[in-house]
Amino acid sequence: MWPRSDLTDLLGIDHPIIQAPMAGSDGPVLAAAVSNAGGVGSLGCGEMSAEKLREEFDKTRASTTRPFIINFFAHDTPVFPSDDAASMRKQLAIYYEELGLGQDLTLSASPMRSFDAAMLEAVLDLRPEIVSFHFGLPSEEMLDALKSAGSIILCSATTVTEARKLEAGGVHAIIAQGYDAGGHRGTFSTPVDAGNVGTFALIPQIVDAVSVPVIAAGGIADGRGIAAAFALGASGVQMGTAFLLCPESAASPIHRQVLQQARDDSTVVTRAFTGRPARTIVNRFVEEMAPQDREVPAFPLQDSLTLPLHFESVAQGSKDFAALFSGQASALSRTLPAGELVDALVAEAQKILGR
Amino acid sequence: MWPRSDLTDLLGIDHPIIQAPMAGSDGPVLAAAVSNAGGVGSLGCGEMSAEKLREEFDKTRASTTRPFIINFFAHDTPVFPSDDAASMRKQLAIYYEELGLGQDLTLSASPMRSFDAAMLEAVLDLRPEIVSFHFGLPSEEMLDALKSAGSIILCSATTVTEARKLEAGGVHAIIAQGYDAGGHRGTFSTPVDAGNVGTFALIPQIVDAVSVPVIAAGGIADGRGIAAAFALGASGVQMGTAFLLCPESAASPIHRQVLQQARDDSTVVTRAFTGRPARTIVNRFVEEMAPQDREVPAFPLQDSLTLPLHFESVAQGSKDFAALFSGQASALSRTLPAGELVDALVAEAQKILGR
Repeated sequence: MWPRSDLTDLLGIDHPIIQAPMAGSDGPVLAAAVSNAGGVGSLGCGEMSAEKLREEFDKTRASTTRPFIINFFAHDTPVFPSDDAASMRKQLAIYYEELGLGQDLTLSASPMRSFDAAMLEAVLDLRPEIVSFHFGLPSEEMLDALKSAGSIILCSATTVTEARKLEAGGVHAIIAQGYDAGGHRGTFSTPVDAGNVGTFALIPQIVDAVSVPVIAAGGIADGRGIAAAFALGASGVQMGTAFLLCPESAASPIHRQVLQQARDDSTVVTRAFTGRPARTIVNRFVEEMAPQDREVPAFPLQDSLTLPLHFESVAQGSKDFAALFSGQASALSRTLPAGELVDALVAEAQKILGR
Repeated sequence: MWPRSDLTDLLGIDHPIIQAPMAGSDGPVLAAAVSNAGGVGSLGCGEMSAEKLREEFDKTRASTTRPFIINFFAHDTPVFPSDDAASMRKQLAIYYEELGLGQDLTLSASPMRSFDAAMLEAVLDLRPEIVSFHFGLPSEEMLDALKSAGSIILCSATTVTEARKLEAGGVHAIIAQGYDAGGHRGTFSTPVDAGNVGTFALIPQIVDAVSVPVIAAGGIADGRGIAAAFALGASGVQMGTAFLLCPESAASPIHRQVLQQARDDSTVVTRAFTGRPARTIVNRFVEEMAPQDREVPAFPLQDSLTLPLHFESVAQGSKDFAALFSGQASALSRTLPAGELVDALVAEAQKILGR
């Protein structure tokens, strides 16, 4: 049915299509819909507490008997607070003022959690079929515990070097995330902005370098992209932006509106929102922060400072300060229920592959 | 034999594989070898005089009866000399000194010619089967003259907007050049560094936007890439870096040596060599110029200033100041005679496509 079945066999799914984790825009409804259609949905849990994770996991489990993925960040956590943050907070004050947020905002000290002992405990209780990581892997002990509990482990690589490290670290499959991808680049090497390898060039080089299944990610939005990923040697795809317009996604109305108008050249990779390179639709905030892109406080400190701007901008229906994550192929996205989208993707890809 | 034959029919070739023009590293021997193998070779003529063009064209014509491509730049020519250039020349003096070039260098005022009346006259005499352009198209009158003389016209686009402009301008086929590509980005919109759309995301969006055949370019290095390009909707591919290690190419020994060691993340897009964004292997000159990448003199003025460094570096067998153009998939390149490489590419691609 597919040119390679190593990934579908590994994950226990019908179709090699992963709905990418998109913390803030995904959720149990979307994940369950994708899994029920024979692909596999993801919950981006990087912004959740352990309690919230249990809640969201249970909601998803209640809506599908199929496997789904829970996704975590595994970044090094910087020391809080920092002088950088104080300086940036001062600079952003003019924006807080403009949006009517005042100057006495309470900021979250750690809006994006790195996978920790509390999370591990929760995950070992929940016994998910599949756990994926971004920004590298957690400690060897944590990984061993997850694997002993029966979870399949996936992790993103943005270069061949990172893919080799992940294979040596014991992952079951590697998400090869190209520069075309929306959202945070999963880079865990330094410097964090090196490489920037496009999806087309990256996939075959990672496929040649490792023996575990490779999942292509970045700029894949329709059946043509799935067929192309297989041609390049991948065993499946991870698609994010393509699912944002589904009614089941948690994308905000302004995010949807902007995505529907986006072109191939509407995005840029910026650190302005969180401190780490992430691809978003260009807006006023991204443009005004561009000159100091390399000087913003470290991830996720910058996120603490910009989240109030994002939420207020979204609440006001304005795109100016919203983090509008998107890949470079958002113009190919369709407004379809997630299950119908998976069906369409499968039909398109198999028509090309069956040629 | 191929999923789509509109491009092979248009160009009168067997296999939808174009050897990219690479001024300085291509030449009659390589172009003829690729055309004789059933693909189509290119001569990068952007650095040639009209006399040199006639000479190189005749050499190629003498070595193949098949179609081949002659390629030109069609950029807006900046005013010479400029204050920028004087300042940059002063800055580069330390490098001229280091390489033993002295301070009294005679610099070429216009190392890269924009397609002009003298070139048009030569081309109308030569009656090439195919002419391709980079950095946009020449004037409508020139284009009409070329088309009336029977030449097929190709041009590079780096965004959907540019592709639409080229179709409206009357090209016969569009080269969709993704961010993964080596050498100069063919951008002819402003700002010149906007977009940066990866090959994977770019191809299907351009295919959807135009009705002429689309040629995929950027990070394509083996049969997997050719099959993937077809899956994404392209009618053929243009490959550059993949041909640099062929014995028929004019790539320098140091360029070959560096390419053989290159990894997926060894390149960067820089204006350091010519004033326009071009993807090259990172070396000392690229690193040291990085902080002022947006402030170098306009293309091709910067090229006048850096060419002596490039040639002397190459002559000394050093990579430090050489312009080592390369795409992001150079690690997939093979050291094979060009005809054997075309045969291998065709066999690999058709094996995947025949599945």
